[in-house]
Amino acid sequence: MSRPPRSAAGGLRRVEVELGERSYPVELGFETLAAAGPEIARRTGSRHAIVVTVPAVGWRYAPTLLRSLRGAGLRAERVDVPDGDAAKNLRQVARLYDAFVRRRADRATAVVALGGGMVGDLAGFAAASYLRGVPFVQVPTTVLAMVDASIGGKVGVNLRQGKNLVGAFHQPRLVWIDVATLKSLPRRQRAAGMAEVIKAAAIADAALFERLERDAEALMALDPQALLPVLERACAIKAEVVSRDEREGGQRMLLNFGHTLGHAIEQRHRYRKILHGEAVAIGMVFAAERSEALGLAPAGTAERIARLLRRVGLPTAVPPAPRRAYLSALRVDKKSRGSRIHFVVLRGIGTAGTLPLGPAEILPAGRRARPRRTR
Amino acid sequence: MSRPPRSAAGGLRRVEVELGERSYPVELGFETLAAAGPEIARRTGSRHAIVVTVPAVGWRYAPTLLRSLRGAGLRAERVDVPDGDAAKNLRQVARLYDAFVRRRADRATAVVALGGGMVGDLAGFAAASYLRGVPFVQVPTTVLAMVDASIGGKVGVNLRQGKNLVGAFHQPRLVWIDVATLKSLPRRQRAAGMAEVIKAAAIADAALFERLERDAEALMALDPQALLPVLERACAIKAEVVSRDEREGGQRMLLNFGHTLGHAIEQRHRYRKILHGEAVAIGMVFAAERSEALGLAPAGTAERIARLLRRVGLPTAVPPAPRRAYLSALRVDKKSRGSRIHFVVLRGIGTAGTLPLGPAEILPAGRRARPRRTR
Repeated sequence: MSRPPRSAAGGLRRVEVELGERSYPVELGFETLAAAGPEIARRTGSRHAIVVTVPAVGWRYAPTLLRSLRGAGLRAERVDVPDGDAAKNLRQVARLYDAFVRRRADRATAVVALGGGMVGDLAGFAAASYLRGVPFVQVPTTVLAMVDASIGGKVGVNLRQGKNLVGAFHQPRLVWIDVATLKSLPRRQRAAGMAEVIKAAAIADAALFERLERDAEALMALDPQALLPVLERACAIKAEVVSRDEREGGQRMLLNFGHTLGHAIEQRHRYRKILHGEAVAIGMVFAAERSEALGLAPAGTAERIARLLRRVGLPTAVPPAPRRAYLSALRVDKKSRGSRIHFVVLRGIGTAGTLPLGPAEILPAGRRARPRRTR
Repeated sequence: MSRPPRSAAGGLRRVEVELGERSYPVELGFETLAAAGPEIARRTGSRHAIVVTVPAVGWRYAPTLLRSLRGAGLRAERVDVPDGDAAKNLRQVARLYDAFVRRRADRATAVVALGGGMVGDLAGFAAASYLRGVPFVQVPTTVLAMVDASIGGKVGVNLRQGKNLVGAFHQPRLVWIDVATLKSLPRRQRAAGMAEVIKAAAIADAALFERLERDAEALMALDPQALLPVLERACAIKAEVVSRDEREGGQRMLLNFGHTLGHAIEQRHRYRKILHGEAVAIGMVFAAERSEALGLAPAGTAERIARLLRRVGLPTAVPPAPRRAYLSALRVDKKSRGSRIHFVVLRGIGTAGTLPLGPAEILPAGRRARPRRTR
């Protein structure tokens, strides 16, 4: 059992997701894609791997990954799915099943998701359900997927009626992160992913928040010395929450900070023109303001978050819309239980909790969803 | 927490499926369908239930079950799926998701499968994946579903390319068995289900096998005094195997006794004209004969099983077909690992084990798949 080679830029960093017999490591490094094969082989015990990717990612990175898998002795093949969240649907899942059968995938075949959160969710759900579950590996290539979507085992697809309405909990055997793959990620996507890093810091780690404030520009420039420790810590926060609370419950709900209004904004815009991370950025500022108004967080908390978000290039103002539009979006949010929503509030930077609030309490009538500042 | 009422004919019998925090009871009784509601409410904590059934079963039993659920304070609704194994497919799963969304099902909605194994598998997979899993209850109305399909959490659907290629492990919160619902089951289906009872006895319980030999006719006549203890014991055998080995592994493989050739026969006939239990009956006699030929089981074991199967009205002779047809069907069986199959053999009535054999060893060239005796 050989250890994977150390990379040039500071070596591999490892975060353990502790889930008993379903535990797995998140391995972070810089320019480590070519070293993924042996570790995937070791963690899955597979002799056959199917790399699921989208064309825009696959043309760049799939050859390196496939070569590494073949070098480790696996039969390795590539299957492309269409890009975009609209393709995260049951039809594409059925197409993946067909591709798996055609390639004679059996219970020992590893499904490797190479791409962003959409690829991981879609390929992960196919892996969770094909033959009632086959080994699964995440190789995320976006900031968002690295620190959030690839960790925790949530996989699934959208229905016409709503996002992520169908899915499973299927933990990967390994999350392999090569941060050098972020170079090809458009700056706007990078910023949107950084919203989740800022979220992790805001709910759980004041020191990380300070580090983000110090290094914001170096992070956006993908300086590995700045980026690796930050992504490692963001992954660790997600891993800790997941470990304590595998299925959605108390702790895991804190990860929804900024997501309640964020989802409402996404729904209002029908997921067009606004990225998830952008909606979450706006939702975080909003939730921090509500926390201040409720007397929970010290004054200035929301502004401090907004300032960091703007430096990264993220929006912070609620898009103007009638209050009732957001209210009705809040009401259909599937995280509501009965008429109340577990709204995530801050006690300050680095400390979060939840309050059961009705939609009208989250969005009081007096408070106008006015544009505050544009980016 | 009130106990469900005792029925007239001998009261409720309970088998516990021990799976840690996912443990659940199998409750057996006679004419107990009207008492299901309170127990479903208690075990799921749900205020809303969707009963999934097929028309042929639903018109008879759904009104009683819905009334019982409503009497227990639940909003209860019925959704029909088409009958027949051909409808156990992804299209019907998507239709169920739609029905769940339309009925505003949330994470606390209980999905209740009322019917045979097909309904349980299909509704169970929808329940496993809708919102990443909602509470699930099995109310089986066939012998096969009572003693086998409803216990153990295996749910799933077929693909064009093969049966049960997609699915999940999703344990029910409760299995509620009213054996009086078997009255409306055609005799041929009853017999096919009895094949799994005989299988359970053959692999694990010589005393049960003797009881079956004593009461075969009373069982087929649905005499509750004969039927309840037998079904209870068959459920207990399945529950024990499942408890020891939730995911498919050593012990659980013993349940495949008779299924290796059984599946090959079903495939050869493309699942038409022959019922699963009938194919398993033939496969059990075949596997017992092979066990004798390998010197593992005493002479006469196969004939004793065949005699009981014939009394119940089941076939025991391998349908004539070229050897290569069965061989190729064995080779695509998804339970094969590499080129070997874990073939379940008997050491005698009540004791089973597995041998890794190649298809050609399971079906040696000398041995003709000749008709032995017709029923």
